[in-house]
Amino acid sequence: MDHPSRVARLQKQLDRQLLVTSLPNIRYLTGFTGSLAFVVVDSDSFVFITDGRYGESAAGLIGAIPGGDLIVHSGGLNATIAATFGDNSIVDVESAHITWDAMRTLAEATSARLEPSVGVVEHLRRVKTADEVAAVRTACAAGDAAFDELEVIASTSATEGELGWGLIDVMRGAGGTAAAWPPIVAIGAHASVPHHRSGTGEIADGLLLLDYGCEVEGYHSDMSRTVWRGSGHDAEMERVHEAVKESQQAGVDAVRPGVVAGDVDAACRAVLDRYGYLDYFLHSTGHGVGLEIHEEPWIRADSEDVLEAGNIITIEPGVYLSGCGGVRIEDTVVVTDSGCENLTLSHKEFHLA
Amino acid sequence: MDHPSRVARLQKQLDRQLLVTSLPNIRYLTGFTGSLAFVVVDSDSFVFITDGRYGESAAGLIGAIPGGDLIVHSGGLNATIAATFGDNSIVDVESAHITWDAMRTLAEATSARLEPSVGVVEHLRRVKTADEVAAVRTACAAGDAAFDELEVIASTSATEGELGWGLIDVMRGAGGTAAAWPPIVAIGAHASVPHHRSGTGEIADGLLLLDYGCEVEGYHSDMSRTVWRGSGHDAEMERVHEAVKESQQAGVDAVRPGVVAGDVDAACRAVLDRYGYLDYFLHSTGHGVGLEIHEEPWIRADSEDVLEAGNIITIEPGVYLSGCGGVRIEDTVVVTDSGCENLTLSHKEFHLA
Repeated sequence: MDHPSRVARLQKQLDRQLLVTSLPNIRYLTGFTGSLAFVVVDSDSFVFITDGRYGESAAGLIGAIPGGDLIVHSGGLNATIAATFGDNSIVDVESAHITWDAMRTLAEATSARLEPSVGVVEHLRRVKTADEVAAVRTACAAGDAAFDELEVIASTSATEGELGWGLIDVMRGAGGTAAAWPPIVAIGAHASVPHHRSGTGEIADGLLLLDYGCEVEGYHSDMSRTVWRGSGHDAEMERVHEAVKESQQAGVDAVRPGVVAGDVDAACRAVLDRYGYLDYFLHSTGHGVGLEIHEEPWIRADSEDVLEAGNIITIEPGVYLSGCGGVRIEDTVVVTDSGCENLTLSHKEFHLA
Repeated sequence: MDHPSRVARLQKQLDRQLLVTSLPNIRYLTGFTGSLAFVVVDSDSFVFITDGRYGESAAGLIGAIPGGDLIVHSGGLNATIAATFGDNSIVDVESAHITWDAMRTLAEATSARLEPSVGVVEHLRRVKTADEVAAVRTACAAGDAAFDELEVIASTSATEGELGWGLIDVMRGAGGTAAAWPPIVAIGAHASVPHHRSGTGEIADGLLLLDYGCEVEGYHSDMSRTVWRGSGHDAEMERVHEAVKESQQAGVDAVRPGVVAGDVDAACRAVLDRYGYLDYFLHSTGHGVGLEIHEEPWIRADSEDVLEAGNIITIEPGVYLSGCGGVRIEDTVVVTDSGCENLTLSHKEFHLA
């Protein structure tokens, strides 16, 4: 990943100091993966602050950034940050990534005026470069590899939790360095809870909803499938699956550069409305994916985000019938010059062969 | 876990409404494990707000709390929260768990005056009940089980990352439902970086630092060990290990009710000072452990937290010689009426048999 060029792109946009507090934003700019860091950047300076745990690892990263300064603080963190601010200056602060409390104590330590600033670095992160797409692609392929093994995993898993571990095992064998989050595995009526916490539900024939992903070089994948395993059938759930599959495809088909994200959401909802299931779609249609599992752009009803080539987003409508079951189908797609490429290649059949 | 009694204890302390925004605090009060929830509580009311994804799972939890109200919002979240505030009232807000930006948009949606409030629920969480201690004990035992298998795991692992997965595998077999975080596995000179990111470093004879833990019922364990595997030796690292082991024991020995946490930190530092390694101890001595891996009380130089029976804390001094290697030893202990009980039972020998 070309961190110096990311920093240069940011610096070109700044007309005063920006305090970057979001760790994913800092990772994007520098490659730093630790748990404590702050960046103070303006058009011609870049100061990176961390503590003694990370001094050695940060030195290599910051050395690669032209003009980058590293401060390893010991003692008062706020005083260290404040010392990088100009006297009586105005400093933009990432207000969506600093707590109210942290802002208050920082403000007490400085004569600078802190101004809230939202989304400057996140906006840069929206358009992925080829190496970022490659990392997400590998992560998606690891998710597909796990889905390919579903029948083997399910047949040797007693519980939802064990099945989730089975998915993780396959993903790590396929290059996933970490699970993006504990897999959601929901059996039967549990699937009517959109974000069921996988637990001790016993694996049995019938409805099975999966939502999982992994990390590769810090970049995430995210996919959901809902299947019916083994014998028996459920006419209502078959119809729900048909509706969600059609809705999801309509969403994917609506993705192209220049489209407002809210219109992609609307495309999914229109299909569910036609089936009479609109009131049972309990969440938004999707979200950007990258260094965070949920990031810009946002694919929801009120979103005015305009899609651009290089965005990576999920399309994941779902229908949930309380106490009966639910269906969600989710792909991760990358916006191309003319439409999108689906990075999630797993099939969407309801009945497993 | 007895959530109603936790809510009752909190309500007894409140003289006006408190907006609880921390998810671990909300889990502590209700058992809720989802990713979106807010609680507005005062001495005689308890309102839980979530969205459609979690309505079904939250209903069961909030039904168990006397007088508990559940609001499943759709649409404006800030308006929904604001509607629970009294007109022109003063509302305490968990200012360490709300972003500056979220506070600003909430303030625009209400006539109530928002006041910053820090640590009310966290303070309740400091003293663990028997069932909480039992969960941490199980998590610690899972960590010990993984350490018992270290030689087997290491001999079949090519890289630090694989060794980390091996530790996770054993922990999950021993009841760990998730890794607390990706294990830190640092070979040789990598161990001089206190929070090395485990990667592709090849497993070989010599110095090996491990720092890992797992989750049981949402409660965490945390342990570190540093060993020398196989043939050869390093006189300096042997001496560092001896110093850290003595320092760590001095810290454990200093733990008892009524002691100021800063004095525990001082006990560890005094030993390292005697060995001449004080300047190479790059972090604080420890932290509370529970629903969060890092929580109150804080075991560091300036901490005025006073230890109480039922606190669960880590004691984890370390010495890091840049470019050569480092040693950290960490136990998780529970404060008892007369001292502490060590929940981490793994041996602290340097040379593995």
